[in-house]
Amino acid sequence: MRYLITGVSGFVGGHYLKYLSTKRAKPRIIGIDGNEPKWDFLANSFRKNIEFHKRSLLNRNFVFALIKKFKPDYIVNLASYSSVDYSWKHPAECFVNNTTIFLNLVEAVRKAKIKTKILSVGSSEEYGIVETRNIPLTEKTPLNPTNPYAVARVSQEQISRIYVAAFKIPIICTRSFNHIGPRQRDIFAVSSFAKQIIKSKKGKIKKIVCGNLDVIRDFIDVRDVIKAYDLLLQKGRTGEVYNVCSGEGHKLSEVLGMLQEIANTNIPVKGKAELMRPVDNPVIVGSSGKLKKDTGFRQEFDLFRSLTDILEYWQSVLATKLTR
Amino acid sequence: MRYLITGVSGFVGGHYLKYLSTKRAKPRIIGIDGNEPKWDFLANSFRKNIEFHKRSLLNRNFVFALIKKFKPDYIVNLASYSSVDYSWKHPAECFVNNTTIFLNLVEAVRKAKIKTKILSVGSSEEYGIVETRNIPLTEKTPLNPTNPYAVARVSQEQISRIYVAAFKIPIICTRSFNHIGPRQRDIFAVSSFAKQIIKSKKGKIKKIVCGNLDVIRDFIDVRDVIKAYDLLLQKGRTGEVYNVCSGEGHKLSEVLGMLQEIANTNIPVKGKAELMRPVDNPVIVGSSGKLKKDTGFRQEFDLFRSLTDILEYWQSVLATKLTR
Repeated sequence: MRYLITGVSGFVGGHYLKYLSTKRAKPRIIGIDGNEPKWDFLANSFRKNIEFHKRSLLNRNFVFALIKKFKPDYIVNLASYSSVDYSWKHPAECFVNNTTIFLNLVEAVRKAKIKTKILSVGSSEEYGIVETRNIPLTEKTPLNPTNPYAVARVSQEQISRIYVAAFKIPIICTRSFNHIGPRQRDIFAVSSFAKQIIKSKKGKIKKIVCGNLDVIRDFIDVRDVIKAYDLLLQKGRTGEVYNVCSGEGHKLSEVLGMLQEIANTNIPVKGKAELMRPVDNPVIVGSSGKLKKDTGFRQEFDLFRSLTDILEYWQSVLATKLTR
Repeated sequence: MRYLITGVSGFVGGHYLKYLSTKRAKPRIIGIDGNEPKWDFLANSFRKNIEFHKRSLLNRNFVFALIKKFKPDYIVNLASYSSVDYSWKHPAECFVNNTTIFLNLVEAVRKAKIKTKILSVGSSEEYGIVETRNIPLTEKTPLNPTNPYAVARVSQEQISRIYVAAFKIPIICTRSFNHIGPRQRDIFAVSSFAKQIIKSKKGKIKKIVCGNLDVIRDFIDVRDVIKAYDLLLQKGRTGEVYNVCSGEGHKLSEVLGMLQEIANTNIPVKGKAELMRPVDNPVIVGSSGKLKKDTGFRQEFDLFRSLTDILEYWQSVLATKLTR
């Protein structure tokens, strides 16, 4: 099987490679990213299967030539300007870059006349502010994007629909909910909390700094996300949209409490205005019924397990730093 | 009043200038277009008010500098890759160019921190294939775009919503229905029919070639469209979307019949496969209730008047050509 994975140096990209290394016999992989990867968690023997290109996906000629030559069975588009905060600061860049990257990929497949399945990764942000009676969100819930990043993701989904209907390009769309897991950067809340807890245990800080703890989110372990993605490429229906989520809502304050419990700490918490967003959605919880029904997906990592692994990850990262 | 009009060399742009020449005392106008204009229908004295730039709106630095310096009261964005047929052949270009042009304009206003009102011109194509029970279409009818051009227009509207909500940029959106009127190019059905009728009267052709005559459309005279646009800039509510339409549906065959009646002809008609579209919406008729309620808009040009003027236009154009 030939995989083209964009955004391969990132959090999700790394976990996708890890998954393929255990589940697929000798996949051929081309990875693209603007940043060099750190793949120290992958076996050297597996890394030999990966051809890495440090290039921009906005470079259309490069994308076209590569896809025409490689003829991937699957394209997993993980590349994106995915920070909501960034999208408020640079709305035009976020919108244009996200949609252009996606269009470059699907146009390359269309023009090369190949039978590549494309995974179009969207976001639960597409639902925007939702009414409580619509929780859990199903794929039929009306979209109401409230930030530039979310608008870009909705556009990508609409573009997908057109390419499926008119050009028969097999695209499967996701609306992926909040990822958590080891190796996630600490600009994301849960990862940041875990890191702060470990630092505090080492006496480096005295308080946990946080944003709005009242929001309710549907957290799903990145390793389950990856499993869902690969199942969708095998069994998902072309042109359909799938929530990738756990189906459970947890208040951020509850998650922070669980982290403290697992770590056996009780560190004081301090809200910080800069971490609050201009518009925040109070509740985002999805239904994973369609995903389960069509692909047989079952969640492996519950919240407790994820949080334990995240704490262990920071424990090991910060230990390494201290002993260096 | 200072107007920045994009796509000023086109059909709608010309009529907008004509409108301003009679309705506004000494407006200052900057017009931008990739094509040179033909403004022989404008008085020379009025043309002196217009500063014309033959430039691409994809050139962001140019757009930013111009808007920062000119500080327009109004931006009327008529520039677009507006052909549905083109959008099927070049889906990516159509999408990216339409959204990028729009984003360049709104970003320029945001960054210059000026109070410019922006008219975001959308299309009835945004509604897509609609159920008969939803006719006439109101602004609350769900959108279901079925071609790349329509997807671009929906995105533009969603981007507008974000810029209004988060950055307080005063944008008013339209969904404009099928324009007709003198000076429209003959790639559009009604203009093409009128031209063919005049040519046939002169013995140049024997048959009228046409596409699908069964579609029902809401035709509105371009001079009424322009009046609606200018009223919306004065009285429309920021962040709102308005149908710009007549509220009446006419089968294309009926329009062709009226043209023949007015011209006193009975020319045979021949369907042509190349003029049929991959996906065609059978019925598109809008409600103009919101536009009328908020702006006091009243239609001046009924279908009979429009068709008469269109025939007269082609009569005069083809007479000139023959006597040259």
